[in-house]
Amino acid sequence: MNLILLNPDDVRSDGVVTVSGEQGRHLIQVLMVECGHEVRIGLREGRVGVGTVMSIGAAAVDLHCVFEGDVPPRPGVDLLLALPRPKVLRRLWAQLAAIGVGRIILTNAERVERNYFDTHVIAPACYEPLLIEGLQQARDTRVPVVTVHRQFRPLIEDELDGLSAGAVRVVAHPSRHRSLREVAHERGAARLLLAVGPEGGWNDFELRLLEAHGFEAIGMGARTLRTDTACLALLALAHEALRR
Amino acid sequence: MNLILLNPDDVRSDGVVTVSGEQGRHLIQVLMVECGHEVRIGLREGRVGVGTVMSIGAAAVDLHCVFEGDVPPRPGVDLLLALPRPKVLRRLWAQLAAIGVGRIILTNAERVERNYFDTHVIAPACYEPLLIEGLQQARDTRVPVVTVHRQFRPLIEDELDGLSAGAVRVVAHPSRHRSLREVAHERGAARLLLAVGPEGGWNDFELRLLEAHGFEAIGMGARTLRTDTACLALLALAHEALRR
Repeated sequence: MNLILLNPDDVRSDGVVTVSGEQGRHLIQVLMVECGHEVRIGLREGRVGVGTVMSIGAAAVDLHCVFEGDVPPRPGVDLLLALPRPKVLRRLWAQLAAIGVGRIILTNAERVERNYFDTHVIAPACYEPLLIEGLQQARDTRVPVVTVHRQFRPLIEDELDGLSAGAVRVVAHPSRHRSLREVAHERGAARLLLAVGPEGGWNDFELRLLEAHGFEAIGMGARTLRTDTACLALLALAHEALRR
Repeated sequence: MNLILLNPDDVRSDGVVTVSGEQGRHLIQVLMVECGHEVRIGLREGRVGVGTVMSIGAAAVDLHCVFEGDVPPRPGVDLLLALPRPKVLRRLWAQLAAIGVGRIILTNAERVERNYFDTHVIAPACYEPLLIEGLQQARDTRVPVVTVHRQFRPLIEDELDGLSAGAVRVVAHPSRHRSLREVAHERGAARLLLAVGPEGGWNDFELRLLEAHGFEAIGMGARTLRTDTACLALLALAHEALRR
């Protein structure tokens, strides 16, 4: 936890916030804070700053907050992801938030098993704390916007323009050889929308529909990776491609 | 499992191998092979090829093997990694083998807890099956060479040249801003040795020693990542930097 992410409503008018729960436990037991210590804080969707420890209780810490840092920019990469197995997705949430995504657009595809949509892993009550964990690791305050889409075609044809506007679109596909960097530079990308398929890949119809809607297919070489490894590797490459 | 990795000793002189255990179960229950079906196979440290199903038992499958493919090249990136928490390392083994590393050099550092060295997660009996799992995912046959070093300084000063020769050396450090790609290109890297520190980073002495032994510090931007996320992100960037 490299930053304590706070809800704006929890900061009182005198600038003091009472930090309890997992965050309080972390301050007391891991950071072993004392009165006067300063810790990194951030406001959900807002500025970063410094919290000064005012008092320490059994399970809660009062911090006096000063938010002088900028609001971190929303990460420049959005992710369109065929819904992975629940076990894989559960592990991914915090890592996606940490490495940085603006939006996470979860979609159906032929090779996504139907019962994946019944899992609580796609319920906000499950994934929000995991996203917060990732943001606190990475010192970010911008919570990825998550949407879940059970129908692939209406998503791509009708909804996607509204979800991720102005991004250069790329789709990872094992048999393709162009690099993400090459495509991003050629098209002068300031934002990227990255599509990652299910285990087994997009089917022909899905790939054609994506390509018809502006997605350019890119590859990462000969190795076939598990969805979670592939996502993190591709997001690292996407951020690097946007770096200059 | 995109390839069945076989031990050379298990293939009989008539070219037939009996595949049992987890591999047999995968062929029978997941791929649901029938006689005459062909599956991708590889010889540990050797060629890839095709296995034709000859017969199917309750828990084993006989394959007739033809190895016509090349021996995959050893991955061009070696990893020098401060020993992570056992739980994190356990999750990493398969992913490291899948994304591709020639060597995994595990080391002590000030911020590595001593008891991490007592775990069975660094015993070959634990990690070998996980490495094989990753190779079978990525269709590789070259098993990463793993060594464990309890003393950082002798490793860097005396042993490292023998472990990873001819590689351009980079060390990831949060406060540095040069990109891995920039350094790799500038130094004409054909191989890379990538050093990744413990949670909390290398201490000053360690970073100075690494820099004195040819490691150039690189960064990935402002976000602080967990060891496992950072490893995978950096390995993706390292492979990309070597791609051309």
